[in-house]
Amino acid sequence: MVDSVAEHTDEELHPPLELGVEAPETELDSAWLGRHLLGKWEEQRLAGRRKAADPRYQRIDGLSMDEHRARVTEQVKLLADDGAALAAFPARLGGRDDHGGNIAGFEELALADPSLQIKAGVQFGLFGAAILHLGTERHHDELLPPMMSLQNPGAFAMTETGHGSDVASIGTTATYDPATEEFVIHTPFRAAWKDYLGNAAVDGRAAVVFAQLITGGERQGVHAFYVPIRDAEGNFLPGVGGEDDGLKGGLGGVDNGRLHFDQVRIPRTQLLNRYGDVAPDGTYSSPIASPGRRFFTMLGTLVQGRVSIDGAAVVVSKAALAIAIRYGAERRQFHASSTEEEEVILDYRSHQRRLFTRLADTYARSYVHDRLLDDLDEVFSGTDDTPERREDLETLAAGVKAVSSWQALDILQECREACGGAGFLQANRLTQLRADLDVYATFEGDNTVLLQLVGKRLLSDYAKQFKGANAAALAQFAAKELAGRAASLVGFHQLSQDVGDLWRASSASVALRRRAVQTELLTDRVSSIVGDIAMRLRSVGRDDPAAAAKAFNNVQNELLDAARAWVELKTYEAFADAVAQMPDATRTVMKDLRDLYALWLIEKNLAWYLANGRLSGARAKVVSSTIERLLVKIRPHALGLVDAFGYGDEHLRAEIATGAEARRQQEAAAHRE
Amino acid sequence: MVDSVAEHTDEELHPPLELGVEAPETELDSAWLGRHLLGKWEEQRLAGRRKAADPRYQRIDGLSMDEHRARVTEQVKLLADDGAALAAFPARLGGRDDHGGNIAGFEELALADPSLQIKAGVQFGLFGAAILHLGTERHHDELLPPMMSLQNPGAFAMTETGHGSDVASIGTTATYDPATEEFVIHTPFRAAWKDYLGNAAVDGRAAVVFAQLITGGERQGVHAFYVPIRDAEGNFLPGVGGEDDGLKGGLGGVDNGRLHFDQVRIPRTQLLNRYGDVAPDGTYSSPIASPGRRFFTMLGTLVQGRVSIDGAAVVVSKAALAIAIRYGAERRQFHASSTEEEEVILDYRSHQRRLFTRLADTYARSYVHDRLLDDLDEVFSGTDDTPERREDLETLAAGVKAVSSWQALDILQECREACGGAGFLQANRLTQLRADLDVYATFEGDNTVLLQLVGKRLLSDYAKQFKGANAAALAQFAAKELAGRAASLVGFHQLSQDVGDLWRASSASVALRRRAVQTELLTDRVSSIVGDIAMRLRSVGRDDPAAAAKAFNNVQNELLDAARAWVELKTYEAFADAVAQMPDATRTVMKDLRDLYALWLIEKNLAWYLANGRLSGARAKVVSSTIERLLVKIRPHALGLVDAFGYGDEHLRAEIATGAEARRQQEAAAHRE
Repeated sequence: MVDSVAEHTDEELHPPLELGVEAPETELDSAWLGRHLLGKWEEQRLAGRRKAADPRYQRIDGLSMDEHRARVTEQVKLLADDGAALAAFPARLGGRDDHGGNIAGFEELALADPSLQIKAGVQFGLFGAAILHLGTERHHDELLPPMMSLQNPGAFAMTETGHGSDVASIGTTATYDPATEEFVIHTPFRAAWKDYLGNAAVDGRAAVVFAQLITGGERQGVHAFYVPIRDAEGNFLPGVGGEDDGLKGGLGGVDNGRLHFDQVRIPRTQLLNRYGDVAPDGTYSSPIASPGRRFFTMLGTLVQGRVSIDGAAVVVSKAALAIAIRYGAERRQFHASSTEEEEVILDYRSHQRRLFTRLADTYARSYVHDRLLDDLDEVFSGTDDTPERREDLETLAAGVKAVSSWQALDILQECREACGGAGFLQANRLTQLRADLDVYATFEGDNTVLLQLVGKRLLSDYAKQFKGANAAALAQFAAKELAGRAASLVGFHQLSQDVGDLWRASSASVALRRRAVQTELLTDRVSSIVGDIAMRLRSVGRDDPAAAAKAFNNVQNELLDAARAWVELKTYEAFADAVAQMPDATRTVMKDLRDLYALWLIEKNLAWYLANGRLSGARAKVVSSTIERLLVKIRPHALGLVDAFGYGDEHLRAEIATGAEARRQQEAAAHRE
Repeated sequence: MVDSVAEHTDEELHPPLELGVEAPETELDSAWLGRHLLGKWEEQRLAGRRKAADPRYQRIDGLSMDEHRARVTEQVKLLADDGAALAAFPARLGGRDDHGGNIAGFEELALADPSLQIKAGVQFGLFGAAILHLGTERHHDELLPPMMSLQNPGAFAMTETGHGSDVASIGTTATYDPATEEFVIHTPFRAAWKDYLGNAAVDGRAAVVFAQLITGGERQGVHAFYVPIRDAEGNFLPGVGGEDDGLKGGLGGVDNGRLHFDQVRIPRTQLLNRYGDVAPDGTYSSPIASPGRRFFTMLGTLVQGRVSIDGAAVVVSKAALAIAIRYGAERRQFHASSTEEEEVILDYRSHQRRLFTRLADTYARSYVHDRLLDDLDEVFSGTDDTPERREDLETLAAGVKAVSSWQALDILQECREACGGAGFLQANRLTQLRADLDVYATFEGDNTVLLQLVGKRLLSDYAKQFKGANAAALAQFAAKELAGRAASLVGFHQLSQDVGDLWRASSASVALRRRAVQTELLTDRVSSIVGDIAMRLRSVGRDDPAAAAKAFNNVQNELLDAARAWVELKTYEAFADAVAQMPDATRTVMKDLRDLYALWLIEKNLAWYLANGRLSGARAKVVSSTIERLLVKIRPHALGLVDAFGYGDEHLRAEIATGAEARRQQEAAAHRE
């Protein structure tokens, strides 16, 4: 491989780029793009957006914790009366059996107040959804109507102080007493208190409590039980106690709290018995024989929580970028290119890099979220509900939730800093949204734990390629394949012509902008890391858990890399598919944005591509110079790209995004004349 | 260069590492290390720490904005009465002329409440320091005593709504009227309102106002003026007006606000006239002939603000890591290696990577902060006060402030997530500290702008090597040097034997742990990027500002990279120097931590080292595997390393760092037995 910087002209590595807005080569149809972003559930999404623009649903800054909680409680009642947030429930009970549309509309509420979204999510998406998915018809008939009307507010009591990520190890017990045909719900020690539960501190009248089911002296694993916790006056029922979690880093309108149970008796029929039941005589039965599979099936029904967190993260990312890009396109600072006029800060290359890479990421995440909604709707509507599709949905949702919630925090912070002191004022919303979304990174599944789940799935899929072969065969295969790759620095030899172009200096920058090349580079990284991990795990036997744990720990960081790379590949694919369908002029601009996303992903992991011989040093430099060129190409379309998100002043509610800055500058300029 | 993964044994690339705590090879003397960290101003630092542990100075969560502001105002009075925060002022006025010790003690207050640190910083470090450094003796005698006693609270009115980073372009004017021997302070348009000023919304009775000095119709640039703004009852004086900035993302105890002036007249003598004066007849004079140099000299006297922000960022980073590492060493989740006992989360490799890389970074930043304090003390005490030393101090302070404040935010977030849901509770402090420190990234100089200043200084130093030579000669030199480097992928040929070892497979992991190699790798990156930028700017003439701005914009992102790399190099050097002086056993552990810091920096920029032929792909993998090995070596010392920070429960005030988690587990374990 002959390869040096000298192969590239200075022009190619450092294209002459304008400061300021270059005349665009094409026009973006922002209105068309806006409709495209609304997606399949346009109507529901617009309805959600109208609510977010309605002051009755909006956050008021500066309320005390109690006032904020009370306001949000009222807002959830408004939502219940409106009915849209109930769309996922059965039509026969007043819902609409609309799973995708329900989430699409719901996630827009994050712009009213994330506390409202989460508090409503606890009621309808966790407490209510657990009754729907883990209960059976008798539970639906009896429990869903008061849940839907908010006559019966409820908590989702899964997490304990001692166990969050490892739900299988929770300490709460539900012991069946055949004498009275009751379950006895009990908290055996302090670490088994239920914790961080929305609706638990104040509003909850009942809870779906996850507990170890014990019958006839045998443990049958974690099951969910419907347990009343407070009377009509709001006093704890006998045997139930709790605490307020108090002030939090955000989501101040949600009354998170703790619950504990001292031998609380509930009728046998309050076991939510879709996946496991206990007969009056105490006999346990389940449609799923394997306890592990049963457990994961039960948890899997709650996947919509992760999907809607991703959706809210995308919505908030869009709003943050709309604020920062609109402000950046008006704000001027320093006389860079002229003594007459100061430079618009969005014309500075560093500002473009900060915001446009994240703009590309947000578009990509918006399209992969649409895919998640499609998948979820097909599974839950029954259109295409198989165990495999459920597993795929859960894997994608776990991974996308993790990456998307982290990206939202990164974007909120970058936008806040890009707006300087103005960004720190609560009136401009960025800091509050960030505070509220902070916990999205660890609730509904800790992001690191979720990525590890994805990583294990990738490893397991890798192993399935060798069905029937033993571990040694797998190891041999992996060792052979990978040693060959790394040692000869090949890996592209058997690839398409497009990818081959990457190795010719004259066409590297062109090749890097081809979808096939981008896909190959992103795919290769996932499969290579997974293959490498499989090789390192080849000698680990199943019979020595300590040795297996040690070996697994040694690959943990790589496994997380692989999982993230896979999520990013899926995100890229969704984005690229969407762009491919767009009409001409808009597609031209959006392809630039897609390229920026792909090259940003590649640049983030450039060390891997270089160390593993996938890119040469000279090509690596072309990655960065192509990114710089794309930033400049995207600049003229920046406002159109955030306009397409469809958020007006009534959604953003940030003075710096309303044109105030430009008006102040005009006044100052008029004064100088 | 023959180089492939095959050169490395699997053992070297993937050392067999234990899950759990390996028996340490050596003992860390945590008490000794704690004293070493206290540094030169041990007494002042311990006094500051005692205040941080005193409930009277501490934040109370859940107060309204007004209550919090009132509490912080009372706390600043306590500080004034105590006198320690006045140490930097002249002894003849009740201070101690102690510049380094003043900051060392002061920055510890961040653990009481960052609002207190910042509000006191506004009064003593900005308002008071401006009088001290920009005023002359008559100002000191008259204005400092009531400032120090808090009889006269003041604002530092530099930033305007329209101009923050570009102070030279502020719009407020101070026009001299020789008829009355007064300056007329005036706000000509809305964008020239002073903004984001602490003490402006409520408490301020006066302000140091920065304005364009105009005398005899000539503009003389930005100068500072002492301007009373409110009467004894707190009402605005005639011609003065303002607004409250209201709720912010953090620092709720500081009353930030806006001020504007309508032809407000002040006596001529209220110009703070150390660096520029106006005679009664209106004649302007200055000891510094160049207006640009005068401006930067004035701003430079306020460098202590940036130094103390770095100090507070280090203090808070230490506290956050103490909380997360203590919790991580107790918290158990998942049965990884045993069916009996769950794994301590700090034994998971991903958790170690999250926290120990940041622990190493925090130690390094603590030692470079000591260096900054030394430099500041030498300059301001007059021990070694030259324009060159001031310039060096300002460059280092600007760069370190930027990197350190960003690192603190990153660390607070990582620690918050590492503590899961418990980390999100305000009772465990991490989210509130993060909210408060958020604005550290953009106030006292926007981090991006500060790094750009550092980058320009690096470029200017680079050019100085060729004093006398013209731009063409510089360009030729740069082109030759760099083209040669990149094309032949050398760069190490003329280097030491230590660095040469890097190229022998048998010794790469040993070489990477040598100080000379680490220093060379980090230094080379700075000088190479700067050289590369110089080459790209070689053809830019001074006579075409538009072309120069365009060319400069095209290198902006690289310049920011170079600046950050330089700050990290300086930070590494301070850390390495400190470790070199440590006694044997402690040095062994601390050298591991130093190596982790260096290799983490190199790994972050691995793509650069690879693309530029400084490291081979195989060596790059040794960087990562050496990091993994270091994580495991540091694990047994993790608690000792955070103990050395010297923060007890009274400073951390986080339940999760008090052993509560371990007690809960013991209770649960006892229950199971």
